[in-house]
Amino acid sequence: MPSTKYTLGVDFGTLSGRAVLVRVSDGAEIAEAVYDYSNAVIDERLPESGVPLEHDWALQDPDDYIRVFAQTIPSVLKTSNVSPDDVIGLGIDFTACTMLPTLRDGTPLCRLPQWRANPHAWVKLWKHHAAQPEADRVNQIATEMGESWLPRYGGKISSEWFFPKALQILNEAPDVYAAAERMLEATDWVIWQLTGNETRNACTAGYKAIWSKRDGYPNKAYLRALHPQLENFVEEKLLPPTPIGARAGGLTPSMAQLMGLRAGTAVAIANVDAHVSVPACKVTRPGTWVSVMGTSSCDMLLSDKEAMIEGMCGYVADGILPGYFGYEAGQSCVGDGFGWFVDNNVPPPYYDEAKQKGISVHQVLEAHAKNLRPGESGLLALDWWNGNRSILVDANVSAVYVGMTLATTAHEMYRASLEATAFGKRVIVESFINGGLAVNEMIACGGLPERNKLFMQIHADVLGIPIKVSAAKQTPAVGSAMFGAVVAGAAAGGYDSIEEAAQHMAHLKDEVFTPNAKNKTVYDQLYAEYLRLHDYFGRDAGSAVKRLKQIKTGS
Amino acid sequence: MPSTKYTLGVDFGTLSGRAVLVRVSDGAEIAEAVYDYSNAVIDERLPESGVPLEHDWALQDPDDYIRVFAQTIPSVLKTSNVSPDDVIGLGIDFTACTMLPTLRDGTPLCRLPQWRANPHAWVKLWKHHAAQPEADRVNQIATEMGESWLPRYGGKISSEWFFPKALQILNEAPDVYAAAERMLEATDWVIWQLTGNETRNACTAGYKAIWSKRDGYPNKAYLRALHPQLENFVEEKLLPPTPIGARAGGLTPSMAQLMGLRAGTAVAIANVDAHVSVPACKVTRPGTWVSVMGTSSCDMLLSDKEAMIEGMCGYVADGILPGYFGYEAGQSCVGDGFGWFVDNNVPPPYYDEAKQKGISVHQVLEAHAKNLRPGESGLLALDWWNGNRSILVDANVSAVYVGMTLATTAHEMYRASLEATAFGKRVIVESFINGGLAVNEMIACGGLPERNKLFMQIHADVLGIPIKVSAAKQTPAVGSAMFGAVVAGAAAGGYDSIEEAAQHMAHLKDEVFTPNAKNKTVYDQLYAEYLRLHDYFGRDAGSAVKRLKQIKTGS
Repeated sequence: MPSTKYTLGVDFGTLSGRAVLVRVSDGAEIAEAVYDYSNAVIDERLPESGVPLEHDWALQDPDDYIRVFAQTIPSVLKTSNVSPDDVIGLGIDFTACTMLPTLRDGTPLCRLPQWRANPHAWVKLWKHHAAQPEADRVNQIATEMGESWLPRYGGKISSEWFFPKALQILNEAPDVYAAAERMLEATDWVIWQLTGNETRNACTAGYKAIWSKRDGYPNKAYLRALHPQLENFVEEKLLPPTPIGARAGGLTPSMAQLMGLRAGTAVAIANVDAHVSVPACKVTRPGTWVSVMGTSSCDMLLSDKEAMIEGMCGYVADGILPGYFGYEAGQSCVGDGFGWFVDNNVPPPYYDEAKQKGISVHQVLEAHAKNLRPGESGLLALDWWNGNRSILVDANVSAVYVGMTLATTAHEMYRASLEATAFGKRVIVESFINGGLAVNEMIACGGLPERNKLFMQIHADVLGIPIKVSAAKQTPAVGSAMFGAVVAGAAAGGYDSIEEAAQHMAHLKDEVFTPNAKNKTVYDQLYAEYLRLHDYFGRDAGSAVKRLKQIKTGS
Repeated sequence: MPSTKYTLGVDFGTLSGRAVLVRVSDGAEIAEAVYDYSNAVIDERLPESGVPLEHDWALQDPDDYIRVFAQTIPSVLKTSNVSPDDVIGLGIDFTACTMLPTLRDGTPLCRLPQWRANPHAWVKLWKHHAAQPEADRVNQIATEMGESWLPRYGGKISSEWFFPKALQILNEAPDVYAAAERMLEATDWVIWQLTGNETRNACTAGYKAIWSKRDGYPNKAYLRALHPQLENFVEEKLLPPTPIGARAGGLTPSMAQLMGLRAGTAVAIANVDAHVSVPACKVTRPGTWVSVMGTSSCDMLLSDKEAMIEGMCGYVADGILPGYFGYEAGQSCVGDGFGWFVDNNVPPPYYDEAKQKGISVHQVLEAHAKNLRPGESGLLALDWWNGNRSILVDANVSAVYVGMTLATTAHEMYRASLEATAFGKRVIVESFINGGLAVNEMIACGGLPERNKLFMQIHADVLGIPIKVSAAKQTPAVGSAMFGAVVAGAAAGGYDSIEEAAQHMAHLKDEVFTPNAKNKTVYDQLYAEYLRLHDYFGRDAGSAVKRLKQIKTGS
């Protein structure tokens, strides 16, 4: 009888990295450990030099990522009492686009004394927002030149993405740009450190760095127009991508020693936290919508078809699972909006009740709100507290509440906020359906589905499809561990495909949120009103939410 | 040297009556006393019989009004140590339409044993809202018959007014209707009790009972169509009105004895709380807008001109001051809206700050909100928490807030609520200006102007006209006392005209809220957005605020 095998999934978040040891046979989460980055998010001053950063900057220290391995892997091995010989593979997932400049050998520029005091030598975190002028230029030149890739990204490249960040380095620190023999995603850099092999994953290349399987990266003419020195950027500093699911290599002896694992342990190509959750939600085929719901939402759908969908953030061949087009969309504010509501719009009696019952204010609001019938409050909201990422692609639109009377309560407005977010989801889902992509059910993961069942039921009623929820405690880490099992292979006790891994290692909760037909009928009426408001405020350049921003800024 | 003279103003509110003794020479409020009605608002069961009332009923006991005199007048005389010989006149003001059925001699039917257990025999208070079916019929028949008086009331007769209430008695209690030899306003009934003379004031007749100086009451054909038995209602049960400012008579010996005043003391024709405030705000000529701002607002303007103004509640010749058309408009929710906001949308930190500083939550919000520049919050609201009385005349529209982001605070939303109410006022004021009536300044009275200076400054900035505030502690009572001085006459130590009385007895505060030109410029932009939202949500029968109500009620 063969011994039980395990793989490791390591999930790199904004403030910490988390390792989960997963049993290959059934996906059980055996042990986990977290390391809080010692330099966290660097947004005021550089470590050591104390060089101050400008507004909107957000950096990280790449050595924090290495410390995650050093701290967490020995810990989970010890806790679980699992032998390193039984750990057959490892996968990671990361925030994105989180990128850095390195030498040809992978040495981050910020490690070198001559660059350590230069902010541009450090890791630019996903939420580094100082490259907006560069993003504007990327979009303007692409529009002028009619670049065919622009529609793939809903017509707009975000300031968070790879090219604006790279261009900012060139614009503001040409010496750093010149010294950077490579520019790459931190997730790829970590895999390079683990295996000694430089690779670039198709997921971040596709979603964040304007790469497609068919057309590659942006061409030289475009890059030259963007900046004369960028003409050869791709050949000089970027690698062609490798599909998701491939093996990056084996652990180097030194990294293996650092972690207490066997040298040569199989390591998967780098991945992204949201996208790696798709197989961890047991989704390996078209037709099922996966939504990672937390402060914001990231939404993904697999398809055999290539289609231009209004409002998608992008689509990438092999970007989520090999063999499929992976589509991505999202809502820029979900849990953050409800959190804003609780912090700013809920009066003391709800806080008192929460304290008295020993539950959260959200739970108090949910308990009251779930007794309301759809439509009963007479309220309707637009969920644009942080702009609108999918469909409108407009960071400047803002939220709307309609229908308040002297009898309106905070829990009615809270429910309207949940409903608005579900209506916002329906707008996106319908855009995909109208584009010819099937959506038969939804699987949710992330922090919210666990905490707010009313929110899930409202989604089922609004969308008219069943909603299931991932059973994993740490869905992305389990997804990474699944890819670790695939790159280990069946012969070593893993699996030969991600489908097979998903079948055994991914689990959904028993509870299914089934659409209530009566609620659906009312929500269909409310959704029609939501759509009218959505278009009135969102698509009219002269609408109040746009003019108010102009009046606010005096433009 | 003649002795100092005084007059009494008695203000009948919803829950109490208040007497103020005023010095004729300068309007000084010498003494006041309040009596809380022993039967308050009767909205559950009749006194004594315990007969239950249906939803939306609101009655009063006429004997409570008499008790006001018995309790308060001796009290103010005693407190002030003023001789009854120096009290030369008395005026009253009242809520309206507050009406009752009586015998030909003024005996309220509810005093008679055979009717005491019948709810329809009691006083129907202004906020008795059970005559909505009758109001619908009044409006429907008037529309069908093309009655010329309907446009005078903005196209709609309210369920609070005289004819719907009278028709409800006929429909539901024909025996009470038959026994009622008179139906009249409580304010007129009180004057009848004081003087022994039956009169009907032009103010309530005009604003509440569809009377006009030119056309009288609705004609027989209309009344017959409304209900066959109503055909002779006017001749049988109503009196022709007397202009405001006239003398009703002198105090009867018995009432004089009850109060400790001289028999024969001059008594003015009955009046209404809002309208009597106009001269108490020193306004006796066209061009100055008077706004009584409390839970809601009542707005009044004098003019030489007769004009059909969109959104007015009505206009009455001699209805506010003799010789002028008195126009009325209003906002159905002002202080009530801010109160709703504080109770339902303000989180604990503001409550904590209020407690710590020993001030109200409103004051905390105002202190934070006044530091904001106009437009700075990026917010805009529609002030329709309780429908829209003027312009739209639609009780079913509801409030809207636009522009919230994750950075939006409660005090920003509070300020947006104040601004929305000022924008709502500007819509009304501009409708009057567009109708050809001059508006050069505004004078405010009521509870709010005293408490919320930011609200006043916002009004000045939004309207672009200076705002002054009544200096009286009890503006309506002072107004009533002023009419008392006029009916006493100059020969007795009073005045010969309300203009003269206003010159001496009415006072404004020194503080003037002057428009800030820079703020006005920004508010002009925001007002343009407000108007767009106003028309989008308010004038479109298919707008969300209307559809939501239909969805709510399942219609």
